[in-house]
Amino acid sequence: MIPLSYGAKEVKQKNILIRIEYDGNGFSGWQIQPDRRTVQGTLEDVLSRVCGEEIHINGTSRTDAGVHAYGQCASFSGTFGIPTDRIPIAANHLFPDIKITSAEEKDSEFHARFSAVGKTYLYRISVSDTPDIFMRNYRYQLKDALDAGKMIEVAKALEGTHDFSAFHSSGSNEPETAVRTIHRIDMIEYADRDTKGMPTVEYEIRVTGDGFLYHMVRIIVGTLTEAGVGEFSVEKAKEALLSGKRACAGHTAPASGLWLEKIYFDEIEVSS
Amino acid sequence: MIPLSYGAKEVKQKNILIRIEYDGNGFSGWQIQPDRRTVQGTLEDVLSRVCGEEIHINGTSRTDAGVHAYGQCASFSGTFGIPTDRIPIAANHLFPDIKITSAEEKDSEFHARFSAVGKTYLYRISVSDTPDIFMRNYRYQLKDALDAGKMIEVAKALEGTHDFSAFHSSGSNEPETAVRTIHRIDMIEYADRDTKGMPTVEYEIRVTGDGFLYHMVRIIVGTLTEAGVGEFSVEKAKEALLSGKRACAGHTAPASGLWLEKIYFDEIEVSS
Repeated sequence: MIPLSYGAKEVKQKNILIRIEYDGNGFSGWQIQPDRRTVQGTLEDVLSRVCGEEIHINGTSRTDAGVHAYGQCASFSGTFGIPTDRIPIAANHLFPDIKITSAEEKDSEFHARFSAVGKTYLYRISVSDTPDIFMRNYRYQLKDALDAGKMIEVAKALEGTHDFSAFHSSGSNEPETAVRTIHRIDMIEYADRDTKGMPTVEYEIRVTGDGFLYHMVRIIVGTLTEAGVGEFSVEKAKEALLSGKRACAGHTAPASGLWLEKIYFDEIEVSS
Repeated sequence: MIPLSYGAKEVKQKNILIRIEYDGNGFSGWQIQPDRRTVQGTLEDVLSRVCGEEIHINGTSRTDAGVHAYGQCASFSGTFGIPTDRIPIAANHLFPDIKITSAEEKDSEFHARFSAVGKTYLYRISVSDTPDIFMRNYRYQLKDALDAGKMIEVAKALEGTHDFSAFHSSGSNEPETAVRTIHRIDMIEYADRDTKGMPTVEYEIRVTGDGFLYHMVRIIVGTLTEAGVGEFSVEKAKEALLSGKRACAGHTAPASGLWLEKIYFDEIEVSS
């Protein structure tokens, strides 16, 4: 076999998966838009500089403005020479509010969006008489005490495979079906202190599923908080699922409390 | 005595002291500037709406861009009708990142700046192998372990009345004298977790004094962190004070870790 360019270094197409954290406050969401600072646009700029060629990335999830991530994923390919394990180090000092936590080579078929089989979202609520302004962009801040038992009851009614039309806001890309599977909704409740040392009660709600409709996690959480103050019930949740009507579910909780925590490419792990 | 305007409600000039929290990230500092969002400018706009007349406020401290406050103070006067205890409630839902925590009437001589006899600044440092992007605007994030004992030794050498020229950046308003009294520097060290649950070591440094030069607290903290990694000593601190040369003190720690915590109008309280 005669090499195409004798003596030249072999040019190999690489397909890279990166895992990414970001603080959603400084971005108009994930998806690239003209004249807006977006996560995708910022990552493409920095990766193009680091790799020395124009990079286009495919993200797993198009998070909204103000939504954070600990475990967003994206894939991109190219013939760049930079060793894969150097990419995070080279990129991370070029942005203050994004961190590439890992980079690994995948086979050419891999695609961060189409290869994903599930996701876990984390939603954080903080209950306090005197909401802490320093946490306003990182929590859903509520004043009324929540009954965790009632929230978990409703959460359990939402687990499983259902038509989640009632837990879905209309968006630009309407999906063919609103049937999704929620593998598990977990909730942790604990006492904490805010940045001034004032007592708070914190809630971490984790929703794991095979896919999510637009605003689905935020509507689930809004519904759970209504259950927590006695204004929503298991019966209402079942009715909402059957009716498919948005008005039958609870309100949309704010973006500030939401983190894309983990993407699954093989099996969905649900800790017990 | 014949009233000036018979039957009209008596118009009384009120002098109000407010205490204020703010998240410094959204502001180009305290002092009002054209075409910039400043704490003073935002407060004046909102208080003018709430009071129904044009309000000008005098702040105790002109904090820099990115510096936070738990206990900034400001005073203003006017003939407005709104009851004093309603001012915080009316104003606070008009800004997300400022909170008026109290409002009280003072006598006509009171002035938030000239009546202040001292201040406590809080500075927060977080030491971690993997700095948390979500805390980047609220901590000075360091990777190297700090020796708290060495930091405290240097801190003690800075307490008392000294010429702090070496701990001072040149600014637009040069003070007549650089002699200031630091009543106390306190430090707390504790283990914590970052927003992802990763271990950190946190430091809270409180500097209480009768007044501070431009960047003085940040230069003191920068110096203390250098002491914490063995690159600054008590001898060097004493030399810096005597020399009055900026180059003899440590670096200026970033604004992100700094909070104006408390203003004293009567006696300076130093907890022990």
